[in-house]
Amino acid sequence: MDDLLLAFDFGGTKLTAALTRLSHSVPGQQGWLDVRRVFSPEGGDAQFDMETMIKLGAELLAGRQATAVGVSFGGLVDYETGTVRLSHHVPGWENIPLQALLAAEFSAPIRIDNDANVAALGEHRFGAGQGHDSLMYITVSTGVGGGWVLSGKPWRGHAGMAGEIGHTVVDPSGPLCLCGKRGCVERLASGPYMAQDWAEEQGSGGARELATGKDVAEMAAKGDEAARRILLRGARALGVGIGNAANLINPQLFVLGGGVTKSGDLWWDAVRQSAHETALPEVHFEIVPASLGDDAPLWGAIALLMAEGLTG
Amino acid sequence: MDDLLLAFDFGGTKLTAALTRLSHSVPGQQGWLDVRRVFSPEGGDAQFDMETMIKLGAELLAGRQATAVGVSFGGLVDYETGTVRLSHHVPGWENIPLQALLAAEFSAPIRIDNDANVAALGEHRFGAGQGHDSLMYITVSTGVGGGWVLSGKPWRGHAGMAGEIGHTVVDPSGPLCLCGKRGCVERLASGPYMAQDWAEEQGSGGARELATGKDVAEMAAKGDEAARRILLRGARALGVGIGNAANLINPQLFVLGGGVTKSGDLWWDAVRQSAHETALPEVHFEIVPASLGDDAPLWGAIALLMAEGLTG
Repeated sequence: MDDLLLAFDFGGTKLTAALTRLSHSVPGQQGWLDVRRVFSPEGGDAQFDMETMIKLGAELLAGRQATAVGVSFGGLVDYETGTVRLSHHVPGWENIPLQALLAAEFSAPIRIDNDANVAALGEHRFGAGQGHDSLMYITVSTGVGGGWVLSGKPWRGHAGMAGEIGHTVVDPSGPLCLCGKRGCVERLASGPYMAQDWAEEQGSGGARELATGKDVAEMAAKGDEAARRILLRGARALGVGIGNAANLINPQLFVLGGGVTKSGDLWWDAVRQSAHETALPEVHFEIVPASLGDDAPLWGAIALLMAEGLTG
Repeated sequence: MDDLLLAFDFGGTKLTAALTRLSHSVPGQQGWLDVRRVFSPEGGDAQFDMETMIKLGAELLAGRQATAVGVSFGGLVDYETGTVRLSHHVPGWENIPLQALLAAEFSAPIRIDNDANVAALGEHRFGAGQGHDSLMYITVSTGVGGGWVLSGKPWRGHAGMAGEIGHTVVDPSGPLCLCGKRGCVERLASGPYMAQDWAEEQGSGGARELATGKDVAEMAAKGDEAARRILLRGARALGVGIGNAANLINPQLFVLGGGVTKSGDLWWDAVRQSAHETALPEVHFEIVPASLGDDAPLWGAIALLMAEGLTG
């Protein structure tokens, strides 16, 4: 077996390509042969992303043939056809047949899925979900999204829309979300919304424009009452969403990644308490941090190829 | 093929046994060879239920050998071991190895699952879910529970607890549920709780003790403002629960059965509107009434045997 696997991560702020051979790896200690990364420029678009990624892939392969190419994409993806419907970050990605374009370029099987589904597979195969049969991966970052592994396999839903825990409603009298509903998990628990709520409480001071979810967590740790209240409200809302998902689907494990999960024990304790209070006493599960960090989409892209039996 | 399949329904108020041969049926027009039913007496217990059902089964078989026996049980069931953990209605059912007991009696393969999971399989195979790949069945009755079919197969969760939509929280500032939480779907949408809320608004009048969910629906249809408000609040709460489930799992279809679903267009319209408002615009699904009626658990028990390849 002489596999040569290429992984692409079309992320929110950067484009990353990485190369690996599973046949040369020690299980649980996989490493990359090589990684290339380019930060997205201001005013970038789909055309730039595509040309850059193809160039990074070609540099890594240096004339060799890839066995298969796995792709993580930060946006809406139609998995069956390999079409990107929309990017969450970059203009010009409307209805782009990325799978067909990359297949023509690399003459290899290509699989593309959205970043949450891919991260779920990556954490299941290489990360915090190893040895578990069913899990939900949740990213809590600029948005709140998720992906499922059920019976060891990805569950994408009837039309690829499963995992949208960020837009489950946990408080119909809560604040208004951009999606038009009140009290969505994302409206309460995502970084930018927590920062917005905190900044609004500060009035017209200088902190208002610069605040991020990280600032809110840091201010909460320093004892700022408003920051603490907003952070805990977000953690509890996420916990209700997780408890509801546990009651509905009864997975073994929830794996949480994304910037907001770095908010410390105050946040984690509130998420766990709220989730277990929401779930029925007979519904057992654990909530653990993701372990793959920034490489999650890349390893997830490799796990996607493994799930499809494309690794040679 | 000379299959002879026995179906048992351990329901809340009655015990039913039925016999069929799939090999003699026209697809979509299955009928029973024979059905026996006994209403549960006051003060009945697990011992009575068990002896009665074995007697009904033996009468139907009249000395013939059953190919397999499928069982629907109204309570908590451990599917892997075929053990009843708890009945929702009848005392004495704590940790009873029903599968082993019935196997000894009928010398045939036995499969047992809870009524919601079984009804989901029945509606998928023989009822409103025919031709669909993924659905959630929800019963809205004295309680609110559910069961999943994903990729054409039952999804029971890691420990058989999936489908508990009744105890998902949709309004944390809502009324207190027996489960200890506020604003569960069941607390807002089940028949007895709606009846209780309506009766409490009537004060100490005579209607208070006798009210059922059906009464609330009838009073709402007659224009009673309190009944209408309570019925619509329940319908909307169920709709939020369904919309949340759609965002999380993205099934094609929700099939609704149980007494409360007979509350008329006012109720159905509110459920559908609330569910579609809660789901993201890209998350499509239909909400339809169950079509198997009182026979759903029995046909579901047959579908369970088919799913396990036990029908001969």
